[in-house]
Amino acid sequence: MRIVAALGGNALLRRGEPMTAAVQARNVRAAGAALAPLITAGHQVAITHGNGPQIGLLAERDARSNDSYPLDVLGAETDGMIGYLIERELAGALTPQHLVVGVLTQIRVDRRDPAFRKPTKPIGPTYDEATARRMADANGWTIAVDGKGWRRVVPSPPPLDILEARAIELLLDHDVTVICCGGGGIPVAETETGTLEGVEAVIDKDHASALLARLLGADMLLLLTDVAAVQEGWGTPDARPIAQLRTAALDLSDFPEGSMRPKVEAAMAFVNETGRRAAIGRLEDVAAIVAGEAGTQVTP
Amino acid sequence: MRIVAALGGNALLRRGEPMTAAVQARNVRAAGAALAPLITAGHQVAITHGNGPQIGLLAERDARSNDSYPLDVLGAETDGMIGYLIERELAGALTPQHLVVGVLTQIRVDRRDPAFRKPTKPIGPTYDEATARRMADANGWTIAVDGKGWRRVVPSPPPLDILEARAIELLLDHDVTVICCGGGGIPVAETETGTLEGVEAVIDKDHASALLARLLGADMLLLLTDVAAVQEGWGTPDARPIAQLRTAALDLSDFPEGSMRPKVEAAMAFVNETGRRAAIGRLEDVAAIVAGEAGTQVTP
Repeated sequence: MRIVAALGGNALLRRGEPMTAAVQARNVRAAGAALAPLITAGHQVAITHGNGPQIGLLAERDARSNDSYPLDVLGAETDGMIGYLIERELAGALTPQHLVVGVLTQIRVDRRDPAFRKPTKPIGPTYDEATARRMADANGWTIAVDGKGWRRVVPSPPPLDILEARAIELLLDHDVTVICCGGGGIPVAETETGTLEGVEAVIDKDHASALLARLLGADMLLLLTDVAAVQEGWGTPDARPIAQLRTAALDLSDFPEGSMRPKVEAAMAFVNETGRRAAIGRLEDVAAIVAGEAGTQVTP
Repeated sequence: MRIVAALGGNALLRRGEPMTAAVQARNVRAAGAALAPLITAGHQVAITHGNGPQIGLLAERDARSNDSYPLDVLGAETDGMIGYLIERELAGALTPQHLVVGVLTQIRVDRRDPAFRKPTKPIGPTYDEATARRMADANGWTIAVDGKGWRRVVPSPPPLDILEARAIELLLDHDVTVICCGGGGIPVAETETGTLEGVEAVIDKDHASALLARLLGADMLLLLTDVAAVQEGWGTPDARPIAQLRTAALDLSDFPEGSMRPKVEAAMAFVNETGRRAAIGRLEDVAAIVAGEAGTQVTP
């Protein structure tokens, strides 16, 4: 099978861990060990990943310097860093015959999308309110409540096209495992003259992964996280895992914002457009999820 | 022809320019415009680039933070940033039928190489002596005189193998233009258990490019810079450009350190190992250099 597997942020950094290179390398090693059996089983795999904490850290350091870099450039930096770590650690879990490459990925968005007027995606560290307000004033950031603290929020427009999709497909055709769409991809938009320029945004990596899966003709979209399954009645005492979600019978309002909603939306988009299968579940369960025996399986 | 083209640092940043994203994007646009005709002429092109100023800036910012990242990770970050800019701007100079992708590149080095005991490669900004000594003390850096000031110097071991060479070859085989070996590639070394780990080093990008050209079976290695040709009597009143260098008659001691010596060495290595052609010259002259009508042509 051809599979697009999206790694959640916890594959790099678990809640509360310090964002050192060593911690991230260790977590990525575990992720590589979890994914390697998919590849040795003969599946063609494209791996995507988030970058929320990492781009936030770079943006915070950047804000302290004179020459501030835009989010597309900072996102590209995180792609280099995270892509390298995944590439190195995944290759370490495979034989040298298996090729693994990280590909920088530009994703086209529309500058006129309403998302640019209403930033929603949290990036970077959680601050107390006073610090958040000070950072916002100093750097022109938009901030919002996230959990018990405040975070910077940035526009998250929907991905429209993946410029490297044909090259990624070529690599998969030859059984090269590809790491791509890091942090949801590097957001670019057409200028009036038809060339591309970077834009200040961070694309949702699950939506980018759904688009990638569609463009690559993937058989399956895997959205991997640290939760075993999507839950019914999330956050209530009656919460229980959902083994099967049929998109025809699915009501998105059952999944409040801040829950698994972006994953359910992305899975639904892929399934509805292709008639194929998506699944949401825990990285460690990936083999069972592919076998249809774990996680939440999303079908038409 | 299959060509490996190495872009000198000035393709991103000219001496004295501020290292903003906008300045680098503008310079990269000019580099893209210079290289595009090679691709439209039907050549298969792999483009490499340096990262000295960029990795130095990241290392300097990093040194001010608590969680310091090693040079392999910072190098990977610069690959993401610079690779993205080149990819975007080169694609802007081509029709959409031409695919351009940036590939993260790990290069194997030997931890026992003497280069690790004698750091020589300058990275980052030039400091006055007092600042350089203070930075060195605070961060454990090695520093050295470079021109009229002081800079941090890091180990620069010779590249032994390029882990993504087969994937890059596959892309070139299908006429995809590849940006790779950024900053000389991400240095990794084998651990005792045979897996790879990152190492604190920066590989010379001209030497990495020569190795890449050899592994890809390239017909030509192009080392592009802001000087029209290698000079005889460099730094003397009698200096004059050299149009032809024959490696059989070449005496490296004619090219003092700090001149074009690393480029001459890299060109010589490629030519001697393959019997093919290398050339050193100005980015703007690239078409004439490929035609053998400009720059310094290096042959056996």
